[in-house]
Order: sequence, then structure tokens, then C-alpha cells
Amino acid sequence: MVGMSENPAATPAATAAETSLPAPRADLAGAEPYGAPQLPVTHALNVNENPFGPSAALADDIAAAVREAALGLNRYPDREALALREDLASYLAHEAGIVQPPVESVWAANGSNEIMHQLMLAYGGPGRTALGFTPHYSMYPEYARDTFTTWVTASRGPAPDFALTPETVTAAISEHRPDIVVLTSPNNPTGTALDLDTVRAAALALAPTRGLLVVDEAYSEFRRDGVPSALTVLGEHPGMVVTRTMSKAFALAGARLGYLVAHRAIVDAVRVVRLPYHLSAVTQAVARTALAHRQELLGQVELLRAERDALAAHLTGRGHGVAASDANFILFRTFQDRSAVFEGLLARDVLVRAVGPEGWLRVSIGTPEDNAAFRTALEEADPR
Amino acid sequence: MVGMSENPAATPAATAAETSLPAPRADLAGAEPYGAPQLPVTHALNVNENPFGPSAALADDIAAAVREAALGLNRYPDREALALREDLASYLAHEAGIVQPPVESVWAANGSNEIMHQLMLAYGGPGRTALGFTPHYSMYPEYARDTFTTWVTASRGPAPDFALTPETVTAAISEHRPDIVVLTSPNNPTGTALDLDTVRAAALALAPTRGLLVVDEAYSEFRRDGVPSALTVLGEHPGMVVTRTMSKAFALAGARLGYLVAHRAIVDAVRVVRLPYHLSAVTQAVARTALAHRQELLGQVELLRAERDALAAHLTGRGHGVAASDANFILFRTFQDRSAVFEGLLARDVLVRAVGPEGWLRVSIGTPEDNAAFRTALEEADPR
Repeated sequence: MVGMSENPAATPAATAAETSLPAPRADLAGAEPYGAPQLPVTHALNVNENPFGPSAALADDIAAAVREAALGLNRYPDREALALREDLASYLAHEAGIVQPPVESVWAANGSNEIMHQLMLAYGGPGRTALGFTPHYSMYPEYARDTFTTWVTASRGPAPDFALTPETVTAAISEHRPDIVVLTSPNNPTGTALDLDTVRAAALALAPTRGLLVVDEAYSEFRRDGVPSALTVLGEHPGMVVTRTMSKAFALAGARLGYLVAHRAIVDAVRVVRLPYHLSAVTQAVARTALAHRQELLGQVELLRAERDALAAHLTGRGHGVAASDANFILFRTFQDRSAVFEGLLARDVLVRAVGPEGWLRVSIGTPEDNAAFRTALEEADPR
Repeated sequence: MVGMSENPAATPAATAAETSLPAPRADLAGAEPYGAPQLPVTHALNVNENPFGPSAALADDIAAAVREAALGLNRYPDREALALREDLASYLAHEAGIVQPPVESVWAANGSNEIMHQLMLAYGGPGRTALGFTPHYSMYPEYARDTFTTWVTASRGPAPDFALTPETVTAAISEHRPDIVVLTSPNNPTGTALDLDTVRAAALALAPTRGLLVVDEAYSEFRRDGVPSALTVLGEHPGMVVTRTMSKAFALAGARLGYLVAHRAIVDAVRVVRLPYHLSAVTQAVARTALAHRQELLGQVELLRAERDALAAHLTGRGHGVAASDANFILFRTFQDRSAVFEGLLARDVLVRAVGPEGWLRVSIGTPEDNAAFRTALEEADPR
């Protein structure tokens, strides 16, 4: 027994050793790991998770698929994940009503986090700039930081619409001349979707400088009837990528599966910077099993959309400002100070998220029971 | 059905669209995705996989653990993977004969690929330099490229020892003044282990400039009796990291689980640059189950070590140059042109790897049947 007994991590000698600790990058000084608080509450409505766990039948099928995969775990997984990418292509054709994209146009990774990191790594980097529109998903600046890409922002329009238009998007691209533009539809944390004219305008504005347009559609399956996916115009713009995730509609946040659709040249650029064997054989098996159960899972999306519309109507009825949501969450304006409302809800076992502009809170759509508990708690925590 | 029918990825219009494709980073031009060929052969002895698949009992336990995890897959995984890190700490104490490191000193990610990427991201970056010693694992320059770290090399000593000494390591550090040094023990592709004096010398040479020393011990469990792990001196050097993987000894290449042990300040720096929720709940469950079966899995390591030593003796007996191996592979010098030998082996359904210096080939240790097939094929493919 030698060695670790003297590890400064384990002993009071830690302070003395601080002086010889290696030095991380200077720009990371003081940075904290990203992440929403993971608190044990009854009604966790803070990170836009799908409240419905897999059914027993799906869990059984996942276990069976993993058992099959387990027998070959001594071997590296298929680096290209071709079977999974084929299944994703088939699903997308069905979901968005498009011709099935070729497998070479689809790519998968460990969550859309890794997808975005890979895209910024291939198309960003030192001296390059990525543009987003506030309020936006809080991870975008971290993807940029971790790929040494400069992150710049322009503003969405005022609440409660948080609008982007072809004019505002084009003007921002003209001002910043970014290498990458990230449009999010439906947007997190506002829940608002973009019209296709705005997406097209961004693609056209980027084309002359060969910029990359990323349309983050993590919440796309929750969009209201008649709201289109950017997938329907992907074919018009070779510089456009649409990213998706199985975390939300497929209730698979714990399994980490994000993906993208784009011109195969973009997929090829991402393949260069991906870590080899980035996607485990187990992840591939779990994701394929969930895709095979899409009817069950997308049925729950229908229920969540109805719950969302009912909650939006309820909040509007109470007099809250409410952003029109095409996602599985709602951004709403509080009557009282938002921190007080957040704490008041938490005291009643309901965890929401304080993001977006001051005075607004974001609540994920839970089960009917979760949503009822939220409504009751809000009556008390945020009286008119 | 609109949109993707016009996707240039799917149509002959692809060439016309090339001009408006977005432009990846200039330094990626012409780069190809990394990876050894994945060819269907009977005896795959090319990527140092463990030839023994999990037992039926282990596969059953993995399936049961994943079924349990599956019921909660709608929720994000434990970002900190604390239970897994605790299990890894316990395993390491047992394996290396050290006091169990605190959980804050252990970190896990999707393969040691991701571990190395995270380390270079936290401690490398533009303007920073990482030093390795050739011949080295072919991915190191890619981790550097993908974190914009400058990769520089010094040479190991001549074949068949490929030695590093305290003097050569200190001289190289003195010459290059790197921010990161990567020592690999046992080294890939040579199979050779380092003595602790060399590891200590590197740590001491780096301390004045607060450099990071990474000791990559991916193959450590295969080391011969009496060869120590750098874990036994980790406590003396707060700037040292030891990285490991479950791909090899635990026969879990398909599940992607790498980890590191270091001062908790280093783990904290890595936590800042890790993608949130990088490690799926399923991966955590699979890895914990394999750790619980460590007795069975490490028993197979014993068999592989014996097979390795027997194969090394056989190759030496034939008159090949052989690098002394503490890993689950052997680097040996061919009599004939190595490309011809490689092809001759492949024609006999044995796939090895043409890495290392010209004239040498690397063969992974397989099952006794694999190794016998290799010996027979080599007689024909590489006559004296």
C-alpha cells in the first residue's frame, strides 16, 4: 500500500501542493461546470425532460437488445453507426414528411451536445465566429469556448414574441459576418418556433461567405400543427444542418443520443473531428430499440402537446405573459419577483428554471399530475 | 413530400452545389477520419481488443442493470457519475495495491479518447504544446489537433527496446518546454513499459513550469509481474494524471469507458470542459456491472498474459526482433517486407496492424486459437 496515501487530494497537504498544480487554460479560470441543479423533488419541471419513463415493454426490449450487444462488447463498436443512422433517416422521413435522406446525410453522437461540439469543431475554431440570438440555450457559449470559436449574439425581438424575422437575421449576419449561425426552433428557453422564411433568409445570407447554418430542432416533435420543420427546406440549402435529439420526444435523455441531417460533405467534415468509436455499441442498441417503439413514444408526445396547450391557456387566463410554445415547456412572466416565485414553487416541491429575461420563468410540461401540482403551487407562490 | 428530394446529398446536383458548401477549418483540408480498417476476418488481431466476450452470466447482469436504468431513461443521467467513480476508485486500490483514492480524484468519460480530449482541452489549447515520444499511439496528434494544441515529439530509443530514460525525458522537456507531456506505459504500439524513475523524472521536470504529466496506462493490467503502475507514485506529484480504460482488461471496448486518477483540482478543471451529461445512464450501469464481475474478467487477463509471453517466446525463437511487451499485443520485426507479410496474413484470415517503425508489425493477443492461427499463418507469410 503505497502512493495514494500521499495523494494531496486525500490529505491535508493539499494546500501546500497547490503551488505545483498544473495550470489550466487561463480563460477557464473561475469557470464552473455547467448544469442545472439536480435536486430531489416530486415535480422536476426544470430541464425539459419527458415525464414518461419507458414502458415495461420498451424496457424489456432495451434489455434484450443490450444483452445481445453485450456478448460482443469486447469488440469496438461500429464507428460509423450505420444501422442506427439508417433508422434515424427512416424516422425523420416519417416525422417531417420528407423523402428519406441517405444514410450519408445523417450523423449521430452522444447527445446533441456532442453534435454541436463536433459542428463547431469542424466549422469554428480560433479566428472564427458563431452567432446566436438571445435569449438562447445556455450551452451554446460553452460549445464555442471549448472549440475556441468566438460567440457573438444578436437579440430576438421583445417579449412575449421573442421574434426573429428575415430582416433581423439578415442584418445580424451582415453585421457579424459569422462562420456559423445557430437558429433554434423551437427555441430554448422561449419555446417559440421560427417560420421557414427566416430560416431561408439566414441560409441565403450565409451562402456567399460559405457559412454554416445550424438549425437546432431539439424540441421539434412538440411543434403545433402546421408549424413546419426546417428539414422541409434542407434540400434547398447545402450549407444548412438540422440537429435533433432523442432526449425529449423519445424520452431518452439518460441514453444520450443526438443527431443531425445535412449534406454529406458536412457529415464527412464532422467525421474527421469526431473521436473514433465515440458512440458505444450499447448506445446504438438502445437508440435503435427506442426508434422501433416510436409509435408508443410519439403517442406520449401528443399528450404532452395537449397538456402544454392547456397549461398555456391556463397561464394566459391568469393574466401571465406567455410565450407561444411549440416545445415541451413554457416561458411565462411572473407577477412577483421571479426568484421569490421560484423559491415558493420549490417550497411546494415543484422545481422550475429561472432562465430567460428577468421576470420570466420556464416550466417543463410534466405528467397531468405534475402540471396540476404546478398550477396549484403557482396560485400560492405567485398570487396576482 | 418535399425538401429532401432536392437534397444535393441525394441527387446528381451534388457537384453543382459544391461551390456553396460551407467551409470547414482550413487545417482539416484533406484529413480523413481516423480508424483502423474494420474488416470481417476470423482472427481480428489488429486493434488490441480482448478476444473474450462477456460470459452469459455477465451479459445477463448487464441486461438486468440496463433494464433497471431503462425505466428512468427519460431523466438525464447523474452528471457526476459518482457511484461509478466510487467503484472505479475501489477497483484501482485493489489492482495497483494503493490506498483507495477519493472519488473526487477519479473521473470517467466515453473511452480514454474522451478522457484525453478533455485533458488537452483543459490544459492545452492555442499557444500551448503537448509532447509525446515516438513511436506513439496514433490518436495523440488528433486530440492535439482537435483542441488546437501544438503536438511535438521526441524519439524513443532504438528498437527493440524503444527505451525512455530519465535523461531522455528530461532533455526533451527541457528542449520543448511543453505544457503537457504524454507518457504511455505500456506503450502503444511498442508494448514496452516505463520504469518509475522515468515517470518521476518527467513529473519533476514539469513541476517548475506547472506542466501536466499524463501517464496513459490503457494496457496496465497486462503488465508483467514486478512492473509497477504509475499510480503508486501519483501521490508524490500533484501534476500527474494516470489514465485507464475498461476497453482492454475488462473486455469492454464496445461500451466506451475510460477514466483517470489525479489531484482533485485536475478533475475539477476537466469537469469545466466536459459536455454536460456526457456519460449516459446506460454506460454507467454497464461499467458498474463489469466492475462487479472483475474477478472473472481479470482471470482472462491472466490467460492473455500467459499467451502473450508464449507468443513472444515463439517469435523470439523464430528469430524475429521482438519488443518486450507488458501489453496485450506484441510488436515484432518481420523478415520480409512488412506490407507483404501483412497481406499474406490477411490472405490467411489473420488481420494485424502495420504500425510502428518500418519493418515491424503489431499483433494483438487473441484466444489460444487465434494465436495458433497467427503462428501458422506467419510461417507461410513471413518465411525466414
